[in-house]
Amino acid sequence: MSIVAVGSIAFDTIKTPFGEARDIVGGALTYFAVSASFFTEVKPVAVVGEDFDDAAMSVFAGRAIDLQGIEHAKGKSFRWGAEYSYNLNARETLFTELNVFEQFSPRLPESYRRADIVFLGNIHPSLQLSVLEQVTSERLVGLDSMNLWIETAPRELAEAIKRADILKIDDSEARQLSRQHNLRKAAATIQRMGPAMLVATRGSHGCMLFNGSDIFATSAYPLEDEVDPTGAGDSFAGGFFGYLARNASLDQATLRRAVIFGSVMGSFCVEDFGTRRLERLTFEEIAARYSEMKRLTQFEDIEA
Amino acid sequence: MSIVAVGSIAFDTIKTPFGEARDIVGGALTYFAVSASFFTEVKPVAVVGEDFDDAAMSVFAGRAIDLQGIEHAKGKSFRWGAEYSYNLNARETLFTELNVFEQFSPRLPESYRRADIVFLGNIHPSLQLSVLEQVTSERLVGLDSMNLWIETAPRELAEAIKRADILKIDDSEARQLSRQHNLRKAAATIQRMGPAMLVATRGSHGCMLFNGSDIFATSAYPLEDEVDPTGAGDSFAGGFFGYLARNASLDQATLRRAVIFGSVMGSFCVEDFGTRRLERLTFEEIAARYSEMKRLTQFEDIEA
Repeated sequence: MSIVAVGSIAFDTIKTPFGEARDIVGGALTYFAVSASFFTEVKPVAVVGEDFDDAAMSVFAGRAIDLQGIEHAKGKSFRWGAEYSYNLNARETLFTELNVFEQFSPRLPESYRRADIVFLGNIHPSLQLSVLEQVTSERLVGLDSMNLWIETAPRELAEAIKRADILKIDDSEARQLSRQHNLRKAAATIQRMGPAMLVATRGSHGCMLFNGSDIFATSAYPLEDEVDPTGAGDSFAGGFFGYLARNASLDQATLRRAVIFGSVMGSFCVEDFGTRRLERLTFEEIAARYSEMKRLTQFEDIEA
Repeated sequence: MSIVAVGSIAFDTIKTPFGEARDIVGGALTYFAVSASFFTEVKPVAVVGEDFDDAAMSVFAGRAIDLQGIEHAKGKSFRWGAEYSYNLNARETLFTELNVFEQFSPRLPESYRRADIVFLGNIHPSLQLSVLEQVTSERLVGLDSMNLWIETAPRELAEAIKRADILKIDDSEARQLSRQHNLRKAAATIQRMGPAMLVATRGSHGCMLFNGSDIFATSAYPLEDEVDPTGAGDSFAGGFFGYLARNASLDQATLRRAVIFGSVMGSFCVEDFGTRRLERLTFEEIAARYSEMKRLTQFEDIEA
């Protein structure tokens, strides 16, 4: 199964207490695509500017990433800058230059229209809906969103959520969206809005999956060196949906494994600036960390 | 194995968005003792005032709790009042009246001096040390502490930590104590200060156990109705040390199960004001929630 995914590709400037990276390739879709490409073929739909040269495109090279859906437009690429607090828990946006992204109107190449999985990354919900309308196949729809759209485009977002099968958002955004502080109640409210499944990520605290009445909870992989959290949630989504695509199943065991693969991909992402760690990652390392997650979290039944 | 535990017994007044409870029996040691008594015999060492009548003492009645070590002194009992924010995440102390606790000098009854496990609850580290000096047996030492003692009694606290085998504190306090933001690094620093084991509780996010080089991470039980978080950490400690005492073992499987029993006891505590939920709890409910924790968190190995 392949994944058609829409989202942003950008140049990022990131400052953390551990250093600074200027004009590196970022954007949620970049992280998603590189992460998911370890598991399945990804067809990204995005726009970049004239400044997005071959060197920038090389982040996608040699991977199971189709480049047809990346539109090269006149003008400059989306640029974003941010600075993290000393403990990486808080982030301040320094600048946002939409550039070519401002006029972005996603157009799916013909070969993308019969997608198995559609991942609607965190962009304006009306763009998410326009992608969905171009897909003609029966498909699984994954959706990401954020507080900005909850606040500024609630009607369009409600429509996108209604048409999604799996909503993947931060736990704080799940609370904001549902107006329920308790996460179980928030999940129940969101499931009534459309998606059968909610994946609520909790940053360095872990993740919860609500699938019908089943709940799965996992801790995050405890990193010893956190360098740059940018893209961790998108890398999580790439691992999660990539694994689902690879296994073409939504049974409970597969979904739970997908959450662990998502957590593993998110944890690797944080180990270096931007996509650097993902770019030099191997599947052997992914599998080893999966097994480590199992050792970290397993416990025995009560003795008889 | 039995546990000798020192700490506070108090009258609490608690306000939450869900209601108010006035002058109910509280104090860290109360939660610890009631929780641990589901697993083993507890010998609490504490002081109460003349106002702590039979009705107040009834919280300990009919349980495996020895009452010899509870001193009844002239004056009023320790009183504490607090109010929680709308989402229960923040707490404001409304008043603290130390009363008889101000002159508290723990004295262990003769039969307490040969303890198997000593739990030094969250009180001034010099009092913790005075308890330890009265215990003549080889014993396992568990220690709890808080930011107040990290800031105001660092030397005495360092001495208590040096003599502890297991330190159980909040992750934020582990960070403050070690001056390391990263929890793995914080644990390594603390382990060099004395204790072989660190249990870092993370409130509603779960818990991590650092045991030598082994790490165990678990999510918290996802409650649907949180009523009053007071005493959750102490109930966790009661379940954790109670289970260790019952099993007289420190092997990895036992320690991990102890963390889960601790999480289970903490989760029940939050379901009602004060000790109310613990008082009407049965071991069958505890065992059922343990199994639920297993179902909530388990996932399979990567398929071959």
